This record gives sequence, C-alpha cells and structure tokens, in this order.
Amino acid sequence: MKLLTDVIFDPAALRSLAGRLHAPEALADRLAAAAAAASDNPDEIAAAVAPDARGDEIASIAALVGSARPRLLASIEAGKAASAARLAALRAEMARRGLTGFLVPMADEHQGEYIPPATQRLAWLTGFGGSAGMAVVLAERAAIFVDGRYTLQVRDQVDIALFEPHHLIEEPPAAWLPGAVKAGDIIGYDPWLHTRGSAASLSKALAAVGARLVPTDGNPIDAVWADRPPAPLSVMRPHALAFAGEAHESKITRLAAGLAAEGVDAAVISAPDGLAWLLNVRGLDVPNNPLSLGFAILDTAEGGQVRLFVEPAKITAATRAHLGNRVTLATPDALGPTLDRLAQGGTTLRIDQATGAAWLADRVEAAGGKVSLGLDPCALPRALKNQAELRGTRAAHVRDAGAIVRFLAWLDGAVAAGERLDELDVVDRLASFRRAHGHFRGPSFDTIAGFGANGAIVHYRASPATAKTLEPGNLLLLDSGAQYPDGTTDITRTMAIGRPSPEHRDRYTRVLKGHLALGSARFPQGTTGSQLDVLARAPLWAAGLDYDHGTGHGVGSFLCVHEGPHRISKVANTVALQQGMIVSNEPGYYKTGAYGIRIENLIAVTRLPDVQGAEREMLGFETLTVVPYDRRLIDTALLDDREKALVNAYHARVLAEVGPLVDGEAHAWLEAATAPL
Amino acid sequence: MKLLTDVIFDPAALRSLAGRLHAPEALADRLAAAAAAASDNPDEIAAAVAPDARGDEIASIAALVGSARPRLLASIEAGKAASAARLAALRAEMARRGLTGFLVPMADEHQGEYIPPATQRLAWLTGFGGSAGMAVVLAERAAIFVDGRYTLQVRDQVDIALFEPHHLIEEPPAAWLPGAVKAGDIIGYDPWLHTRGSAASLSKALAAVGARLVPTDGNPIDAVWADRPPAPLSVMRPHALAFAGEAHESKITRLAAGLAAEGVDAAVISAPDGLAWLLNVRGLDVPNNPLSLGFAILDTAEGGQVRLFVEPAKITAATRAHLGNRVTLATPDALGPTLDRLAQGGTTLRIDQATGAAWLADRVEAAGGKVSLGLDPCALPRALKNQAELRGTRAAHVRDAGAIVRFLAWLDGAVAAGERLDELDVVDRLASFRRAHGHFRGPSFDTIAGFGANGAIVHYRASPATAKTLEPGNLLLLDSGAQYPDGTTDITRTMAIGRPSPEHRDRYTRVLKGHLALGSARFPQGTTGSQLDVLARAPLWAAGLDYDHGTGHGVGSFLCVHEGPHRISKVANTVALQQGMIVSNEPGYYKTGAYGIRIENLIAVTRLPDVQGAEREMLGFETLTVVPYDRRLIDTALLDDREKALVNAYHARVLAEVGPLVDGEAHAWLEAATAPL
Repeated sequence: MKLLTDVIFDPAALRSLAGRLHAPEALADRLAAAAAAASDNPDEIAAAVAPDARGDEIASIAALVGSARPRLLASIEAGKAASAARLAALRAEMARRGLTGFLVPMADEHQGEYIPPATQRLAWLTGFGGSAGMAVVLAERAAIFVDGRYTLQVRDQVDIALFEPHHLIEEPPAAWLPGAVKAGDIIGYDPWLHTRGSAASLSKALAAVGARLVPTDGNPIDAVWADRPPAPLSVMRPHALAFAGEAHESKITRLAAGLAAEGVDAAVISAPDGLAWLLNVRGLDVPNNPLSLGFAILDTAEGGQVRLFVEPAKITAATRAHLGNRVTLATPDALGPTLDRLAQGGTTLRIDQATGAAWLADRVEAAGGKVSLGLDPCALPRALKNQAELRGTRAAHVRDAGAIVRFLAWLDGAVAAGERLDELDVVDRLASFRRAHGHFRGPSFDTIAGFGANGAIVHYRASPATAKTLEPGNLLLLDSGAQYPDGTTDITRTMAIGRPSPEHRDRYTRVLKGHLALGSARFPQGTTGSQLDVLARAPLWAAGLDYDHGTGHGVGSFLCVHEGPHRISKVANTVALQQGMIVSNEPGYYKTGAYGIRIENLIAVTRLPDVQGAEREMLGFETLTVVPYDRRLIDTALLDDREKALVNAYHARVLAEVGPLVDGEAHAWLEAATAPL
Repeated sequence: MKLLTDVIFDPAALRSLAGRLHAPEALADRLAAAAAAASDNPDEIAAAVAPDARGDEIASIAALVGSARPRLLASIEAGKAASAARLAALRAEMARRGLTGFLVPMADEHQGEYIPPATQRLAWLTGFGGSAGMAVVLAERAAIFVDGRYTLQVRDQVDIALFEPHHLIEEPPAAWLPGAVKAGDIIGYDPWLHTRGSAASLSKALAAVGARLVPTDGNPIDAVWADRPPAPLSVMRPHALAFAGEAHESKITRLAAGLAAEGVDAAVISAPDGLAWLLNVRGLDVPNNPLSLGFAILDTAEGGQVRLFVEPAKITAATRAHLGNRVTLATPDALGPTLDRLAQGGTTLRIDQATGAAWLADRVEAAGGKVSLGLDPCALPRALKNQAELRGTRAAHVRDAGAIVRFLAWLDGAVAAGERLDELDVVDRLASFRRAHGHFRGPSFDTIAGFGANGAIVHYRASPATAKTLEPGNLLLLDSGAQYPDGTTDITRTMAIGRPSPEHRDRYTRVLKGHLALGSARFPQGTTGSQLDVLARAPLWAAGLDYDHGTGHGVGSFLCVHEGPHRISKVANTVALQQGMIVSNEPGYYKTGAYGIRIENLIAVTRLPDVQGAEREMLGFETLTVVPYDRRLIDTALLDDREKALVNAYHARVLAEVGPLVDGEAHAWLEAATAPL
C-alpha cells in the first residue's frame, strides 16, 4: 500500500526541500498535516511545517501544501461511486470485531461544528457532503439520517440502494434501530465521537429489544481507510492580552477556585473554544473557527494548573513563553495515562455534558475516578465579555462595516448599470472587500448569498449548480461574518434588487419591527433569551406569519460564531442574559419558492441607564453591527414613531461611525442609505 | 379521656335528635364529620348527616353542626400557649417510636391547597396560622419554616423559644437539617404527607451526614392529639352533564386508552380535582374548592374502570345512579389492599409526581408493582375546556360581573357620600352582592381587599387587626372570585378612592398596557406561557419596574381556582397554551408601604380568525371577565391608538353584556364607567 504522502506530494519537490529542515519522511508528515489544516497563509503554513524556513523555502512549503490539499481530500470527496467497496470493507472489519452494527456520526473528538478531514468518516463512507448526519451500518442493511435541509441532497449524493435515507429529527437512529436490529445484536460505537448522553439514549433504545451498544477500541473505519488524512497541524498562537483583556493565569485561578467550590478536583477541557479562551491561544486547524485542536486538564491543585495535550509541532517558542509556568505541555497520547493517574484515589473530574466524549468519562471511571458531568467551566465565563473584548468587538464591527458598505455601494452601482451578477459573484466580491483590510483573518462561516427563492432556504450555500443570477424585482439575502484579531462579526442584510413589491416591503418591515423590538428591549436581571424571543416574533405573529429558526445565538471574541450557553429562542433555556454577553438578533421571514428576508445585528447585553422613577436595574442591548437597513424595503406606514426614531438614530450612528472609513461613491451611497425616514 | 363528640355537642340536643335517624353515637360521629367539612348550607349538611331528615330535623342538624364547628376547631386554634405541652407529648411519642426527629408539613394526603381540620397538624403543634410551612421537631430543638409572606406573622403566632423560625425558600428543611442532626439520627416522616420527590431530597440531605429518613406507620401527632377532628363529610353530588360537557364514562374511556398507549395499566387518581373532573362530581369537604376528598384507581382493563374509595355516607342514591356501572365503590380502607392486588404480577401504576403521596408508590412497589411517576392523566384533559364548559364559564362571568358592577356602583356612591368603610366592609358587601344570586356557590378563594399600603402585600387577607379604613387619595386592590355550577371566576380590579395621584395613574396605566398586550396576543401552536409572560411585563420594565409574582394561572370549571398544568410566568414551562385552556392575566405593581395595583381578567385560549395573507394558524385569547377598568386611573397619554381601541371595545362589550343585568344607579354607573376614552 502506498503511503498517503507518496500520493499527495511530488517526490522531486519533496526531496529538493528536505534535508536542511527535516528528514524527508518527517517533512512529508508535517506537510500532510499542514494540508489537513485550514490555513492558506504561507507564513502560517511554514511556521507549522518548519519554523526555521527561509523566504524561498516558505514559498515552496506553501506551494507543496496548496497542491497537496485537493489530493489529501480526494478520498473524502470520492462520492457515492466509492461507497459499495468501502461499505463492504467496513462490514468485513465489523465482522472481524464481532460487531453486527456500527454507528458513523458526523463528529470529531471535540463534537465541534467544523471537523477536520481525518474525522470525515461519514462523507468518506457515504459520499454525503452536508454538515450534520449519521449513518448506521448493520450486517445486511444500512441507513443514513439527515435533517430537513438535506432530504433532497442526500438522494443526490448518496447511493440509497446502500443507505436508506431517514429524517434525523423525525426518525432518529434511536427510534429506527429497535426495529432494525434483533436480540443479541452488538452495535459498536466509537466512544470518542459520542457524548455519554447520546450513547445512553441509543443504548436504552437497543436494550429494549435485547441488543447491546458497545464502545469500540479505535474506529473500525480507520482500519479500512488506507489514505486517511492525518490530524491537522497549524501553529498555536498567543491571543494578545490587549484583545483578551484577562491573562490566562487569571482565568486559570478563578476557574480553579470555582471548580473547587463545587467539589470538583479537575476539569477536562475538551471543547477547543474553551481551550482557546482559557489559555488565550488561537489556531488554524479548522475552517472559520480560529481553533487549535487539543485537550487540556485544569487541575484545581496549587491554585490551578493546566496540562495541555497537543502535538509539539504546534508550539513555537513564543507560544511556550506565553503559556508560562502554570501550563505544562504533553503529547496527545499522554491524555489517557494522565487521566488514569488523576482518577486514582477517587478524585472527581468535570466532563462537559454537552461536548465531552464518552471516552473521557469511561476512562476516568475505569481508573477509579468520579465523573461530574456538567457545564464546561469555560462556557459561562467565556460568554461574559470583558471591557477589552467589548472594545475589540466594537472596533471589529466598525471595520467590518466599512467593507460591507463599500460592497453594498458597489452592488447597487453594478445592479443599476445592468451588470449580470450571480450569487457566487456576490460572495466573491464581499470577500474581496473584506480581504482588503490587513486585520481580516478569514470568514467566520461560509457566506450565505441567496437571491429570490434561494433566500428562502435557511442554510443555503451557493454553488455553480444552484447560483441564481440577480434579476430586478426580487430580494438578495446576504448572511456573512468575519474574523478579526479583536472580534468576530456576523451580519445579515436583505437588499432589494430593482423595485421591490408591496409584499416584499410589508414582510421586510414586519421583520424589522421584531428586530427593533428585541434590540431595544429593557429587562431585569435573571431574564432569559427564551423570555425575550416573543418580542422578535410578535409583529409576524400578528400577521399570521413566523420563522422556523432561533432568534439569536451567542458569538465569540475572535472565536466561534456559534457559542453558548445563552441563546434567544422559543426553546426553554434557563441561562439568564448577563452583562457582556454577545448575541445575534436575527428574525426573518421565508416564502418558499419566492424569497427570504433576514435582518441580523450582533448585540451585547449591557446595563441601561435608569429612567426617572426606576426601582430596579434594567439590562438592555448595545448594538454592535453598524450597517444600514435597506430603506427601499421599509414601509414607514407600518412603523410607529418610536420605531422610526430607532431606525433614524441607528442610521445616524452608522453614518457617524462608518462614514470616516469610506469615501467617494461609497460615502455618497452611505449618506443616502442613512438619510432619515 | 372525653370523646371529641362529648365536647363539641350539647348532649341534650344530640339526644333529642337521635333515634329516628341514627343511634346517638353514630349521629354524633356524622355531625362531627359534617362540622369538619366546609358547607354551611342546611340542606347540604343534613344530606350528609341524615339523608332522611325532615324540615325541622334539618334545621336542628344544621344548628348543631354550626355551633359545634368552633369547638371542633378549638384545638387547632389554641395558639402558642398550648405548644409546649404538645411538643413534649410529640417528643415522648417520637421516643417511643425510636425517632430522633419528625417532620410536620402543612399538607394533607392529597397535597391540596386547602386542607381539612384533621390534617392541620402544623397549626395544632405550633399555633402557626399561615397557608404554607413546615416544622421539624428534633429531640432537643425544633424549627419552623415559613416563606417571605409570614416572616412577621410567625413570630407573632409561634413560640420561637420552642420553634426557631427559618425561611422556607432561602433555608429550606433540606438545607437546615444536615447541620442540625448527627450521624445515626432517624428522622421520621408521614409518607401520606410527602411526595416521592420531596422525600427523596430530604433523604439525600440527611444521608450526606449519616442520618436516615424513615416513613412512619401512622402520624405520631395523631397519637397525642386527643381531640383531633374527624375527616370531613359532605355529600358527593353529580356535576350536571350540561355543565361538564362530557360524560364521565367518555372521560374514563379516553384516559384509559391514553394510559394503555403509554404502557401504564392503571393510574391512582389522588388529586381531588382530578377525581371531581373525571367522575363529574363535586363536594363541600374543604373551603373554596368544591371538592369531595377521596381516591380513585383508573384501571385500563375492559376499556377503563374506576374504583372509587370514599366514605359511604358521601354517596346518595342519586350519586350512585350517576356513577353507573363503570364505577365501583369501596371504603377508604380498601385502597391499600386494592393497590396490593393490582400490583401483584408486576403491573405498572401511574402515580402523579406532583401530588401523589409517597405512601402510594411505596405500597405499589412493596406489592411487586411498577410505579410510573408522571403527570396525573386528568391534568391536561381537564385544562382543555370543552364547548359546554366554555359556555358555562361565559355565563358565570357575566353573572359575576352583574354582582361586581352593583358592588362598584355602591362603593363609589358610599365613598362619595363620605361613608366610613374599611377593608372588611368591602369584603362583606362584595360577598352580599354575590350571594344575592341563586347560582352563587361560595367564594373561589378568600377575598383580598387591600387599601393603600395593604394593597402592596401580595397575599394580604384583611383581619380586624389589620383592616384599613378607606381614605380619599389612595387605591383599593380587590381580588376575589366565585364558584357557580357552570364556572369559576377570579377577578382583580384596582379602584381609585378619591382623587388618584399622577403616579397612581402612571403605574396603573403601565400595568394596563401589559394586561392589554397579553390579552390581545396572537401566537402559533406550541407557544408556552413562559414565552408570552414578557408581553405583560415589558411596559413596566421600560420604566424600571416589575412585579414579583407570576402573570397567570390555570382556572377550573366549577373547580379549583388554581389549576395546572399550564401557566404564564417567568419560570420556564414546556406546556403549550392550547385551545380551551383558561388562564388568568394579572400583571401588577406594588409600592411597599404605599399602594398596590393588579388588573386581572380570566382569558381562554382560542383559535383566532386568520388575518389576510396569514400562512399559519394563530391562537389568541377570548376575554371572559366583563367588568370595567377604572377610567379614573387611566392616563390616556400613555396609551397608543390600538390600546385605546382595545379598552373602548372591551368597555362597549361590558356595557352590552352586563348592562341588561343591572338597573337604576348601577346602570348609570356602568354607562359612565364604560364611556369611551
């Protein structure tokens, strides 16, 4: 069998580069790992592959990684034609292990939103390219479970003669399995890819029919996936204190004290955004989220100590210096033995119940430790942004608005000039306006540019096959975000292309009314996002309309664009909105086959000044996003005086804050776009 | 020891009545039991004591019961002077049983809101007269736990040298006990007076310090409470099908099918309002709630059968005929053996997790049965009122409004004439206006009439010691309700006495805005009361104000005025508001030491007509209560056009529906009170 590195690299190029930097095999391994990461910045790539590389070597390394990447991903993107042979190989491996079934979730060891190539086992096996799903492979049949977004796509991408498609929410694996297995069946699962809770519900469903769920030792797919990519490699970089606002030593101290007060001896930090926040580090291991994948153990002894388990190649001298003497480094394979040692003597370890792998809890208990399943200790402190983080996010939002205003001015001009543009042009042009700023660190998620009917598909991503051309008389929904060193943005604006219809304006204005009501809410301490959600929906409900998604999600500080533990949603949630939390405010309206509307600002929970006669402190929101709403879509007859004043005050602020960043036609556009209603 | 009946009855009167109806001892027992019930209607009392009684005998029975009642309750109302001896007797009984502690909750076997005299053990032991609390008696010390309403009252009524007072919510028994007991201690509890859940949390707290919680066989207090009243006796009456809207046989059939589908073989109906709803029966065992205390078992076999465990004296021939052949009668002492028989062979019994006594679950499991702790099967169906119940409640509300309008007209006249009235006069006069109607069946709770500062005490009940005299320049908060055979009412109005201040009007109008916003809400299927609660609070929040109680509770149909499972509250709740549910809409504002404001209507969830262009069905509320708001307290400058239109439309409806029921000065008052803003 050929080594993966032999397949993806040009041997001559590899040989010419090796020697001074690394031995050829070691260089090839590092290059492959860098290709499995998400960076396309030559300096960052080279820093991970060979910190000593010089200018020409850096260019060679970046070129090698860039050309290797498609080859590295080829086995994942082989599509449904490869499925039959792979399924047969997996079944043979299952039989060898005595398994009558095996679960293949779309998940990595961290239960992350973006998973690296090495964990794209579902795509490798089935050809499915969506962002959520699970396959269940039995000896004689197999099924794939996807949600409502992917019911059409799954039939396109997956051989449904091999994998029966099912609805992930309406008929999840736990509901399907009891009717598909028989008593005595042994269904395997990779305990790194499931939480205790998800494994327990599947186990219960199987036990009801006399079948068993058993953890596997290693993932059976890895035994038959010959050209499986390596784990991603990018450098772990310090996140500047000026942006973090609190030294990681201080975070370690207060989290350790909090855990100790709960009677917990140590916590496994398994969520990479928890790790990034706790240690003030960032990386480029996965797309969109600036994460360095790894695990840590926060030990409450001695006022708080952290053991960090990452590939040594990720750590530069600067990072090592930044981490200091409260952080001990170890390799990833030391995690298990370290847990064993900590667990001995019956100590209690916190495992995050939402994202901690079952493997972690199993290992702790097997070694005699006690598991405290609960909230990741980083989750709530991370959500409460400090003054430096809030300052940073404000600056990032103004900077981002400069790019978006330039884009919107260009778009209106291009449409007026009759240019033929499609959704992919929109995505590309917006990206180029953002890239023009040196602080831009990449998108915070894949841009959604949906014109007309595509705007009504809530999780739409334009592709050459689906991209619509912008035609007058319909709406463009544009949801995008950026990463900057001082903050993360996420904004949706909906624009009229040509002349909007009265219905477009009616619906847009109703969505705007809900957006304004939520953004200007006053509420006491203890109020949750579930309580406020109705404010964003009431103007739609009044017209017999609604939208089928949440109203707001938490957002990180140069971190993940989806962050807990708070949210604004119909679903009951007991986490109160607290000062410093950033959350999105994004009501919408979607008319299937016609158009979609969404208006999204990021807002930060803040203490409002008291009104005269106030008896209780009230919280409210500071609006972070500073980009005009589309005045052409506002039907002022539907707004009351307070709502008009809110829009006018917001637009005046946008002009004041973003005006100085743009000039020429863009400035003229901004002045017109922010004129009072 | 003298028999209770020797103490409470005049022997001569007893002798003269006995003979034809019952032997003297049997008559005395029935009279005492009738005195322990809540009826003061001579016919109803006599029907329970001696169904064959004739006119003069009925009068004698009623007189005997009426005069015996204070004597029957004397031991409960003995106050703190009696505490020391009773506490000593209880401790001796505890020692005899090997207990180092005993729990004395304010509870009966049904976890009801109103508990009969026989279960007033906390009042008997401590002198405490509030409506919620618990005592913990240890060998050397004892404590009483009451909530914030009673922190002053408990020091007044209870000897705090014997019972240390603690806060029931901030330092509940489960928090206090671990510091008060020692390893090896055995704390007893009466398993009839605690649910599994409440016993489990106490048991866990004790286990942490090596102490144990053990169920007692019989309540130790009963062994030392010589003159303990008997269980209450009133006749169980059929509830007319015209008002119930569904025959009890039909309810039995559909509930049995629902339980069977859940895999449950039988359900213990332990909540008396569940029993009343299921069998279409009502009684007079406790004040305010028209309940007949008893237990039932709903067996899913044969399409649904009910065994009803009640005193035979409660069942008249008419009731027996009403119950029919799907209901089997048994005496209360047959409940345990019947549970044993049902439980044998491993059948599954549903016990209500919120109100089912631990005794029930213990008994089922001891006999080999499985316990399914869950929702009382009557709870949700009971909440979904049918058309007959909705028709009935509409009629009851209009009738009740007639009485209230007459009262309000009288009140304004009396105040204008300078009459000196205090809060007790208000309570009495309102009751007399309601009693004037032949359908009135009593209050649905004790009227709250709070003038000025007393209005700011949320659970205030006027007494001669506290009753304020109405003086011009302040507000009267009046919260009351009535039972009628066709429905239960609950209404709060706040009235200006004399000239209100600008602050009174500002606060009243803000409360009204929230009340109007909630009452006129439109919302889709699946929406909970927790989601809508903010609508009632937002106008107060905008001014830095709030209120510290829920916004709405469910209400029964000629049943309890507090009924689940839905509610409107800040507290997360997952029960959706569904068509036919009745709920209160009662925001408020309270200024401690000054005045209180609350505006309460009952509203019923209804399907609203579609507006033009609607895509989804929307629910909303039908307002049941038809009594004017106080126009003198409305600051129209704070209302928008929609709010004014809502008030004007409501007042026009009030005049149209209630106008025909009143004449003379009351009609003139109503016309003025409902004039357009």
